[in-house]
Amino acid sequence: MTNTQVTHVQIDNYGPWTVTPEPRREVDLQTLQSRLYADLSQLFGNRDGYVFFTRFDNMVAISNGIDMDAHALVQESVSNRYPVTMSLGVATGRDPVSALGTATELLQEAGSAQDRHRREILKGRAIDDEFRTAEDVQVAHFDVDNATEEYTDRLNEFDTFISIEQGYAELMKYMRRAHDSLSFFVGGDNIIAVCPDLGEEAYEDAIVHVQETVDVQLKVGVGRGKSAAAAGMDAKHALEECRHTGDTVHLDL
Amino acid sequence: MTNTQVTHVQIDNYGPWTVTPEPRREVDLQTLQSRLYADLSQLFGNRDGYVFFTRFDNMVAISNGIDMDAHALVQESVSNRYPVTMSLGVATGRDPVSALGTATELLQEAGSAQDRHRREILKGRAIDDEFRTAEDVQVAHFDVDNATEEYTDRLNEFDTFISIEQGYAELMKYMRRAHDSLSFFVGGDNIIAVCPDLGEEAYEDAIVHVQETVDVQLKVGVGRGKSAAAAGMDAKHALEECRHTGDTVHLDL
Amino acid sequence: MTNTQVTHVQIDNYGPWTVTPEPRREVDLQTLQSRLYADLSQLFGNRDGYVFFTRFDNMVAISNGIDMDAHALVQESVSNRYPVTMSLGVATGRDPVSALGTATELLQEAGSAQDRHRREILKGRAIDDEFRTAEDVQVAHFDVDNATEEYTDRLNEFDTFISIEQGYAELMKYMRRAHDSLSFFVGGDNIIAVCPDLGEEAYEDAIVHVQETVDVQLKVGVGRGKSAAAAGMDAKHALEECRHTGDTVHLDL
Amino acid sequence: MTNTQVTHVQIDNYGPWTVTPEPRREVDLQTLQSRLYADLSQLFGNRDGYVFFTRFDNMVAISNGIDMDAHALVQESVSNRYPVTMSLGVATGRDPVSALGTATELLQEAGSAQDRHRREILKGRAIDDEFRTAEDVQVAHFDVDNATEEYTDRLNEFDTFISIEQGYAELMKYMRRAHDSLSFFVGGDNIIAVCPDLGEEAYEDAIVHVQETVDVQLKVGVGRGKSAAAAGMDAKHALEECRHTGDTVHLDL
Repeated sequence: MTNTQVTHVQIDNYGPWTVTPEPRREVDLQTLQSRLYADLSQLFGNRDGYVFFTRFDNMVAISNGIDMDAHALVQESVSNRYPVTMSLGVATGRDPVSALGTATELLQEAGSAQDRHRREILKGRAIDDEFRTAEDVQVAHFDVDNATEEYTDRLNEFDTFISIEQGYAELMKYMRRAHDSLSFFVGGDNIIAVCPDLGEEAYEDAIVHVQETVDVQLKVGVGRGKSAAAAGMDAKHALEECRHTGDTVHLDL
Repeated sequence: MTNTQVTHVQIDNYGPWTVTPEPRREVDLQTLQSRLYADLSQLFGNRDGYVFFTRFDNMVAISNGIDMDAHALVQESVSNRYPVTMSLGVATGRDPVSALGTATELLQEAGSAQDRHRREILKGRAIDDEFRTAEDVQVAHFDVDNATEEYTDRLNEFDTFISIEQGYAELMKYMRRAHDSLSFFVGGDNIIAVCPDLGEEAYEDAIVHVQETVDVQLKVGVGRGKSAAAAGMDAKHALEECRHTGDTVHLDL
Repeated sequence: MTNTQVTHVQIDNYGPWTVTPEPRREVDLQTLQSRLYADLSQLFGNRDGYVFFTRFDNMVAISNGIDMDAHALVQESVSNRYPVTMSLGVATGRDPVSALGTATELLQEAGSAQDRHRREILKGRAIDDEFRTAEDVQVAHFDVDNATEEYTDRLNEFDTFISIEQGYAELMKYMRRAHDSLSFFVGGDNIIAVCPDLGEEAYEDAIVHVQETVDVQLKVGVGRGKSAAAAGMDAKHALEECRHTGDTVHLDL
Repeated sequence: MTNTQVTHVQIDNYGPWTVTPEPRREVDLQTLQSRLYADLSQLFGNRDGYVFFTRFDNMVAISNGIDMDAHALVQESVSNRYPVTMSLGVATGRDPVSALGTATELLQEAGSAQDRHRREILKGRAIDDEFRTAEDVQVAHFDVDNATEEYTDRLNEFDTFISIEQGYAELMKYMRRAHDSLSFFVGGDNIIAVCPDLGEEAYEDAIVHVQETVDVQLKVGVGRGKSAAAAGMDAKHALEECRHTGDTVHLDL
C-alpha cells in the first residue's frame, strides 16, 4: 500500500506578473521558469524528493520525507532569490491523484492563483517519520522503444516530437483515469509516473492502450521506496533490465 | 512571405550518457537539462532568437539574425561549462517545418544522435544580413481562455494539466499538418507557434479544430518581424488586444 | 570549546583544463566558477553548512552536520552537471586552521592539485552526530563602519574597493596568525570569520589592529551554534545589535 | 592610446535589503550574488565585454562595444529575473581609473547607493562605433609563478590563499596608484588588469614592487584589442608565451 506525499507548488499571481506593466520578454520568462524549476529540483532533490515541471507556473513534487519546516525553508529560499514568490500545499493519500487533489484544495481555499493578495501560502501536513515505510512511493519509468532509431535519426525533430508528445498525452490521461497515477514527461523519450500499488498487469494494460491508440511502443521499469529518489532509482535500474532482456515491463518491488 | 531560420540543437549521445556507467540521479539530469535550456534561452535570446525546450535533449531555435560564427560561440560556451556537448544544424525555408526538416537532415547525415564519435557538428547556413526583411518571422502566441477560472482555481493541478496538455497535443499536431507551423508549449497555458505567412482564417480554423476535438478554447495574437524576438513581442501585444476586446484572433502584421 | 568541521573543496586539475587545448574564454570560466560556487552554497547550505569561494578553484566549507555520504552525494552531483570534477578533504579540530590543515593534507597526500590522474578524492571523517554540541561552531560577522557614507557614495568604486580589500587582507592575515581563525570576504563590506572559542577581547584586538594598520574601522557580531548556519545567523543578529547600539563588538554566545 | 569604456554596476539599495525585515540566510545571499555575477558575465560577455565581481553588490565592467540600448536590455533582463534591481553608469576615458571615476559619479549624482527611491538609473555614454579602434582596450593577465608547486601542494589552503591575497592586495593598490589601472582577482592565482597604454617597463616595475613588498612572484601577459574579450584573449596567449619561455613579461601589442 503506497502513501504518497504530494506538494503542489504554485507561483503566486504569475500570469498577471508576466504582462505587467507590459509583456515581459519571453526569453527572460523562459530563463526564470526553467531556473526556478532547476532550483526546486535541487532543493527537493537534496531531500530525496522529485519535482516535475508540469506547467512551470504550477509544479508537482513527490515530497515523502520532507517535513513542513523544510517546505518553509524552500519557500523562503525562493523568495530570497527570485522576483516571484510561491505557495505550497502538502498532502498525502493512498493514491497520488487524491493526494494532489487535497494539496490543490488547500491552495484554492486560500484564494485564487491570480489573487494579488494571496502570497506564500504554506498549508498541509507531512507524514511523520515514524509512519514512513519502504512501500510509500511507487515510481514507474517509461521510455519509448527504439526512439533514436525509429524517430530521432529518421524524422525531422518536430515529427519525432509529435510522436513522443502524442504518446505522452495519451499515457498521462489514461494512467490518471484508469490507474490513479500522475505521469510526467521528463525529457528525451522518458516519462516518470507516480503510482499507487499497481501490479504488472496495470502497466501492460497502459502500454497496450497507448500502442493501440497512438501507435507508440513504450516499455517500463517500476520501483518502490521510502522516497521518490529511492523508488525512482529502482525504477531506472528496472528499465535497464528491460533493455537487457527485451521485456516490456519489469517490476523491482 | 516568411523566411524562417531554424536551428536544430541536439545534445550529443545524451541517452547513453545518462545511464553510463550507471543511471544518473534524476534530479541532476533535470537540473542539467533545464539549466542548459535556460542558458540557451539567454545565448540565443541575447541575439534576438527564441529557443524552445521541445524534448530537452533536442531543442528547436528560431535563429534569424544569428550567423554561423555566433552559433559556433554558443556551441563552445556550452562545451566549456557542461559535461555534455551539442550539435547544431541551421537551415532556412519559407515555412518553418521545411526549414527544420533541412536542419535535422544536416545532423542525421553526420551520424546518429547516439553515435559516440559524432560530436559538436555545426552545419548549415544562416541568412545573409542583406536578405533579411521585417517579414521573415511570423509568431503566434496562443493561450487558453479563462484558464485560471475554468481550470486552475477549480480542478486539481493534474486535471488542469491534462486539459492544457490535450489542447497542446492537438494544436501542435494540427498546426504542423494543416498549416506547416511549429507549436511549442512554453508554460502556464501558453503556446508559441512559428508559422509561415498565415492569415486570420488559418488561426480561426485551428482554434475551432482544437475546440471541437478536445474542448479547449484558445485565443491567439499574431506578430511579424525580422527576428523571433520582434515577432514574438508583437504577438504578445496582439494577445493583450484579444484580452481587452474579447476577440479570439488578433493579427498585428 | 569549538569543534569545527572543515571541508577543503578542490577542483581537480583545473589550471591545466582552463588552457587546454587553448585558453578558454574568460567569461565562460567566470560563469563556470561562480555557478559552481552558487551550487555548492546551496548543496552545503541546504545541510546547514557554509561554503566560501576563497580562490574558486579551491573553496573552504564549514561542514558540521554533513556526513561523508552527503559529501559523496555533493561530489557526484557536481560531476553529473559540470565539465570538471572536485576532490574533498574533511577534517575537524578545535580551531578551524588546524582542521583545514588536516583537510588539505588529505588531498595533498593523494596527489598534486594538477595531477591529471587524481580525480574525485573523498577523504576524511565527519563528526558523529552524538558528539555534536551547540558550541561546535563560532562565527564572527564583520562589516565596515559607515561603508556607504564613507566610501561608496564618495569615492570611485575602485578606490572604495581598495579600502575594503586592504581591510580584508589585513584582517584575514591577522585573524589567522593571532587567533587561529579563517576569515572570508563575502561581498559588500562583509567578512565572515570562523573562529575557535574567542572572547570579546580577541575581537577588539583584531579590530584595533586593522584600524591602526590600514585605517579601516570594522565592527563585529559573533554567534555560536551546532552548525555554521545556526552560528552565522546568530552572528548576523549580533551585528544588527551593534548597528542599533553603536557597539563595536557584540557577542551572542 | 587606449579608450576604455567602463560600466559601474550597482545593486540598488542592496545592503538594507539583505537585513529587511530580518537578516536573510547567508547561503541565499551568496547564491544570489554569484549567480547575478554569472549572468552578467554572460550578458556582457556575449557582447565581448568583461565583468569583474569586485564587491558583488558593486561590479565593474569593461564594456567597449556595448551601447546604451544593450545596457538597458541587460538592466531589464536582471529586473525580470531577480528580486533586486541595478543601476548602471557608463563612461570612457584614456585611462580606466578616470573612466570609472566618471561612471561612479553618474550614479552618486543620482542618489545614494542606499537610497530606497533611487532605482534602475541608467546614465552615461557609450563610444560611437565609428570611433572605436583596435587599441581601445589593454588587458594584462597576471598569475603567480609556480603557485601549485610553491603553495597549493605544500601549504594548507588558507595559507596559500593568504599569499595569493596579499599579492593581489598589493598589486591592485600599486597598479591603481602608479599606473592608473584596475586590477581584479579572477580566481586561482589569476589577476586581470585593465590598463592605459603601458609598456613593458611598467609591468616589470609592478612585478618587482609586489615581489619586494610581499614576496609573491608574478608574471604577466598583455594584449590589446577593440574589446575586452579581444584584448583579454591576446593577454592569455601572451601569458602562455611566458610559460613557454620563462619570461616574466610578454606583450602582444
